[in-house]
Parts: sequence; C-alpha cells; structure tokens
Amino acid sequence: MIVRPLVDQERIVRELEALAEFSDTPKPAITRILFTKPDLEARAYLKGLCEEAGLHLREDGLGNIFARWEGSAPDLPAVGTGSHFDAIPYAGMYDGTVGVLGGLEAIRSLQRSGFKPRRSIELLIFTAEEPTRFGIGCLGSRALAGVLSPDSLRELKDPEGRTLEEVRWEAGYMGRLEDVALPEGYYSAFVELHIEQGPVLEQERVPLGIVTAIAAPASLRVHLEGVGGHAGTVLMPDRRDALCAAAEIILGVEAFAKNSGSINTVATTGFCEVYPNAVNSVPSRVRLEIDIRDVEQSRRDQVIRNVIQGVEQVCTRREIKYSVQIINIDPPAKAGSDVLKALVASCSEAGVRFKLMVSRAYHDSLFMARIAPTAMLFIPCREGISHRPDEYAAPDDIARGVYVLALTLAKLSLAEEKTVAKDDPVLLDE
Amino acid sequence: MIVRPLVDQERIVRELEALAEFSDTPKPAITRILFTKPDLEARAYLKGLCEEAGLHLREDGLGNIFARWEGSAPDLPAVGTGSHFDAIPYAGMYDGTVGVLGGLEAIRSLQRSGFKPRRSIELLIFTAEEPTRFGIGCLGSRALAGVLSPDSLRELKDPEGRTLEEVRWEAGYMGRLEDVALPEGYYSAFVELHIEQGPVLEQERVPLGIVTAIAAPASLRVHLEGVGGHAGTVLMPDRRDALCAAAEIILGVEAFAKNSGSINTVATTGFCEVYPNAVNSVPSRVRLEIDIRDVEQSRRDQVIRNVIQGVEQVCTRREIKYSVQIINIDPPAKAGSDVLKALVASCSEAGVRFKLMVSRAYHDSLFMARIAPTAMLFIPCREGISHRPDEYAAPDDIARGVYVLALTLAKLSLAEEKTVAKDDPVLLDE
Repeated sequence: MIVRPLVDQERIVRELEALAEFSDTPKPAITRILFTKPDLEARAYLKGLCEEAGLHLREDGLGNIFARWEGSAPDLPAVGTGSHFDAIPYAGMYDGTVGVLGGLEAIRSLQRSGFKPRRSIELLIFTAEEPTRFGIGCLGSRALAGVLSPDSLRELKDPEGRTLEEVRWEAGYMGRLEDVALPEGYYSAFVELHIEQGPVLEQERVPLGIVTAIAAPASLRVHLEGVGGHAGTVLMPDRRDALCAAAEIILGVEAFAKNSGSINTVATTGFCEVYPNAVNSVPSRVRLEIDIRDVEQSRRDQVIRNVIQGVEQVCTRREIKYSVQIINIDPPAKAGSDVLKALVASCSEAGVRFKLMVSRAYHDSLFMARIAPTAMLFIPCREGISHRPDEYAAPDDIARGVYVLALTLAKLSLAEEKTVAKDDPVLLDE
Repeated sequence: MIVRPLVDQERIVRELEALAEFSDTPKPAITRILFTKPDLEARAYLKGLCEEAGLHLREDGLGNIFARWEGSAPDLPAVGTGSHFDAIPYAGMYDGTVGVLGGLEAIRSLQRSGFKPRRSIELLIFTAEEPTRFGIGCLGSRALAGVLSPDSLRELKDPEGRTLEEVRWEAGYMGRLEDVALPEGYYSAFVELHIEQGPVLEQERVPLGIVTAIAAPASLRVHLEGVGGHAGTVLMPDRRDALCAAAEIILGVEAFAKNSGSINTVATTGFCEVYPNAVNSVPSRVRLEIDIRDVEQSRRDQVIRNVIQGVEQVCTRREIKYSVQIINIDPPAKAGSDVLKALVASCSEAGVRFKLMVSRAYHDSLFMARIAPTAMLFIPCREGISHRPDEYAAPDDIARGVYVLALTLAKLSLAEEKTVAKDDPVLLDE
C-alpha cells in the first residue's frame, strides 16, 4: 500500500505560533510551567485541536493527554507518537511542541491521504518534561513507565512548598496516580519527533536525524548551610560563607566534566539560589542543582562520584553543613530496532537523507523506551540553540519531519504482531 | 541641672515586640522592605506612638519621619536622635529599631523626669537604611545629607523595574524630592543608638560602646553575560557559562579581602542571581552584588581595584561580557567631638563603663555626620549576631543605652550655641 501523507505546512506553523501565545513571559521568550495558567490554556488549546481532528481524548491523573485515532484492529497495541509542551523560564517555542503539533499533523496528514490505520495511532502529550516546577524531569513519562511510583509522586513539592497532589487537583486532574502507569504492551511502538537541540544536522546539512540511543542524564541537588551574619561585622577568618563553598563546587563541576577524557561528558550547575541574598549579608544557605550527562554511563557515574567527593571536601574544609540528593540517575536507552527500520525505510521512501545519531538531551522517549520499542526523529534547529528565546526550526524542516513521521506511523500501524513483539528495547546498563 | 531620666524598660520591650509583628516572614524572622505592607504598617504604628508622646510630626517626600519635642528656644538648631526600622529578608528585630523606639523612649523618659528642653529634641526615623529594594543603603539619610540628588533618586528602580517615584507615590509620599535635603545647621548634634552588630562589647563585658568613627563601606554590582543553551547539548569547550565566571569572581572577592594585610578588611558577595536558573540550562546571565568595607579607606579602595581587575581577567579569559557598577563608595566618618564629650560625660554620670570603638557596619549616622556633629552609642548584642532571626539584645542593655542616650540628649539640648558650632564633623577623605 502506498501512503502519501498530505502535510499542511502553513497550518502547523500557525498552530506553533498560536501555542506560543500561552506563556508567562512576552514573546519570543516562552515560559510555560506545569499547571500554571499558560500550561492550562495550552492544554485546552491542544485538546481542542485533537477533538477537531476526530481523535478520542483521554487524560490521566497527572495530566498526560492521549488522543487516539482508532484503527481497524483496536485491540492490538497501538502506535504512539508525541512529545511535551511545557517550557523552562525564558525558553523557545519549538522544544517539545514540534513533536506535539507535528505528531498531530502527521495523523491529520494521514487522514487527509485516505489512510486507514490497522493498529490505532495515538498522540501522547506528556505532562512536564522539564524539571522546572518539581525538580524532576520527564514527570509524565517516568510515571507512565512506572519509574516513578505513586508514593514518590505524592512526596513531590514545588519551590513554594506546594505538593504535586495539591496543584494537580487544583488543575482539575483528580485521577488516581495508581492508574497512570501504562499496562504492558500498551504500545507496539513509539516515535518522538523533536528538534535536535544541537548543531550537528545543521552543520552537516542533513535534514533528518534518526536517534539510535539517548544519553544517560543525572541530576544532583546540593544544600549548603553555613553561618550568616552582617557583611560589615563578621571578620573573614570567622566566616562560614555558603556561597563561597558553592563557588568552589560550581568550578569543580565544570572541571570534572572537562577532565573526563571525553568530549561527550557535560556537567552544568544550572540552578543556584542564595539565602538571604542581600548584598550586606553573609550568605548562610545555598541550593545548587547540577546536571551531568554522558553517552557512556560509567564515565558519567565517575563524574557524579567526583562531584559528591568534591562537595564533601569543600564543606569539610569550610565547616559548612551539606547534603547531596541524587534527583535522578537514569540509564541510557537504545532505540527499538524495528522502529529504527521503519524510520529508515520511510526516509528512503521520501527520498530524504538522514544521519544516525545519539541524543544527549533528556527526552520522554528515554522512559517510553522502557515500556515500548521507541525511537526519535530529529530535525535541525538553528545553531543548535535550544532553551532560549531565539530557538528556531525552519518550516520546511518541520514539515519534512512530519512527513517522514507520518510515513513511519503508517508503517508501524500496519505492522504484524510478531514483527513488533521481537522488538524489545535494549537498555545500555553497564 | 540634674536630670534623672525615667526609662520604662518593659514598655520599650513591649513596643519592640509589637513592631516585630509587622513583617513579611513569620517571627522571629523579620522582613520589612521599603513601602511594602509591613513597612507601611510599621510607619503607622510608630507615628501613633510619637503622637501619643505629644511630639510634632512631619514627613518628607521620601518617607523620613521627624517627631519633634519643641524646646524653649525653638529657633535654635535641634538635637536629633533616631535610626531605621526596615529589615532585610529574614533579619532580626533589634537592628535599627532599638534606635527608633529607644530614641522615642529617651524623649519620653525626659518628659517623665520633668526635663524642659532648650533646643528642640527630634526623633528622626529614617527611610530604608537597608539596600534591599533599590540596591542602595541609607537611602533616607543620603538624601537628607544631599549626597543623593533628586535626579539620582528618580532614576532608582527596584528588581521588578518599578521606580522609587512610583512606589513612594503609591505609599502616599508625594512631597518634592527637592525638599528632602536638610538645610545647613538643621541639627546642632545627632546621636544614634544601635546594637553593635559585632561581638566586642559582649566579649569584653562592657555595656556601652561610643563610636568614634564609622568605617568606609562600598558596594559593587557586577553583570555577567555569557551564552546560554541546553545543558545536555552544549559541549564543554563551546560554553560561555556566566555562573562559572561568577564562581571565580566570588572566590576572588573572598581572597582579596583575606589577603589585604588587615583583619579589618571584609568583602562579601551577598547577592547572586542566575538566569534562567534552571537545572538543565547553561546559565547565560548572572548578577552579583559585592560589599567591601574597611576602617581604612585606601586599603578598601585597593580591594575594590583588585576585584574590578579580577572581573576583567576572568571575563576576558571566559569570553563573558561584563559590566561593573560602583553602587556606593562612601568615605568614613569621624564623630563630632562635642557629641562624644556629651556621651562620655553621660556615661560617667550614669556610672556606666564604656568602650571607644569603630563601627564597621553601615549606619545612617555615616551620612548625618556630613551635615551635623554626630556620634553613635552601641549596646551589646548576643554573639555579635545581626541580620539574622536570632539577633538579640537584652532588655537591661537596651534600657541602659536609652538612659545614657536620654542624658546625652538633655545635655546637648541645653548646650550653648558656640560650643556646638565648633564641633564640625571631620571626614577622613584621603
């Protein structure tokens, strides 16, 4: 059967623009944090579009949104696609959203082409891929994969001390957390379309990237507690300044990543909060959040050990109380081979060059790979910029990605059971 | 004439407790920021007490409050006393307030004793000694001394971008800024009662300190602008991380102060704000605020030069854009000799031991010294702790300070014109 998806490039650009209106900061800076007003407005907008496309809607207690195009064999495991629509403070308008609206447009393009799905095709719009509010990334997909238990979810608090339980109820999500994890075999395959968030595709002038593995991210939270006091009256030898300790740790994080022996190691102190944060007060408390990633888990874990040891040494020398929490430490994921094959075949069919690559960013697919054969499709973004207001993906590149995604979803929808059943994800646990 | 002030120790403690209720944070943490609700409520409370004491109230356009006990020679320059009542975030309940309520109680104790002032005695309650809202300390006293021009005042903005003009109008202070500076010879003398904010009096078991000089404080604001991006995808060699640059600067500030050659040099990076401040984003911008003090101006200024040079070097090496603003760089002040004499005489009269000392904290008196013979009276505070919720001064120590202050105000009120006229402040400009 020959499928010719009819992608409406103007429409998806228009919808991306419309979605960008839901933000707590003026355009082009997008800020859309879980269960804030812009997040809730964006949800309403997206659900409206799904309904318009005739998809069957379902939401779980965490706010993950499922929009299903029922196939002729509705009892078979479905084919999933999707991404997230939340945005860290002052981010851009393409991260995640290209996979949400692109996934929807892929479904619509197949509808327009007259394609009839066998397995259902489902758009999955994830809750909170970004860790902004509750300090943990991929909240929705972790819970779907059963990686985050209902009890752990109930313990989560935002920086204002409000629990996830409180804010999800307030947002109208009252479903049982016990019902969030997807049953085994729910999806036969999952494909996520996403901007690369790196410069490789643009630099090599390749229009598509097929992601064969997702790197192993980890993050740490460090609490430092020294002794505060008046900046004019506490003499230098008597100080136990939490910010000076933090400064040494920040430089240590940078040095450990630089000296890991591989260009693929990255480590970042992205968050630093100082208390009481007044020019004339010696800082008494600091909270740091540190992100450490590598495509090789053992090398990443060595950096984590180095950082923790560094915190100990600095704090012992400076007489600072400290705690280090490991917020997440996830193994890398390898793509499902039959999903990869379907992506490669779709690229050939579309006559589009592609590059097999590794992702060093976090994605919901990292967790979907635990419960379904999963792969990702990358499109170029300008200068590799992401998480910034000037993040940009060209309409042509978006439409090309959507076209290949649609072809891939069609193939996977028609796939026999046995083919898919063999195709388990392989986790690169070392 | 023998004066025996009748100090009501219980009353002043009760009033300090009552004032502590006006706070944006739960007790014992006091947060009272210029023209916020607690600041406005505290103003209303204090003005009520002054009216109750029969004092004549006046406020200027910045919110400095004057409460005058008219003397028998109302045209002579008055004797002033007072301090501030604002509090940095999570501070304590004695800094400033002891001089406000203590100044008022000193006046009331003289009223109770039957004393009749010759020169008027005026309580001066300063607006915003702390730099919290507009980044500049001693806002009220600087303006009173003519150190901060009306035009500079009109340029001030708070962290939310609101101008001082907006917020003072909103708070009901609509007077002309041109009328804030006090005319020459307004005060014949000024005395500020304050907690020491250092451990010396307590350690040496001396109940009172008479301050002969106030150290030279300065503060800098450093803006750093690097390049942000996704923490997973920007490789280490490609980074221009503003927080890593900030970390080097913070450690430099500490090292320059430690290596100044004198125990009296202190330098603090008390404020650090990171943008976008998300664990998975490379920090693109950081704002630091640095406080540098010394009793010797030349040594302090050498530390300032070292810090500025350090910022240049770090930012050049790391390819970070930067700017350094000098927020304030004030010369030290020496106390007026006749005010000192009156304080010393009052201590003898009261039979209280005292220590002549230097203040390393900022005080409104630093600026009052530019327009009037000025001195300060310190009382001990527990462990030298200040700007923290556990700041504490004992009721006995407070009452003793108020008693000596009252005696001093009485002496200065009766002082002849020629005695006081000779008594100009000497600025230690080098």
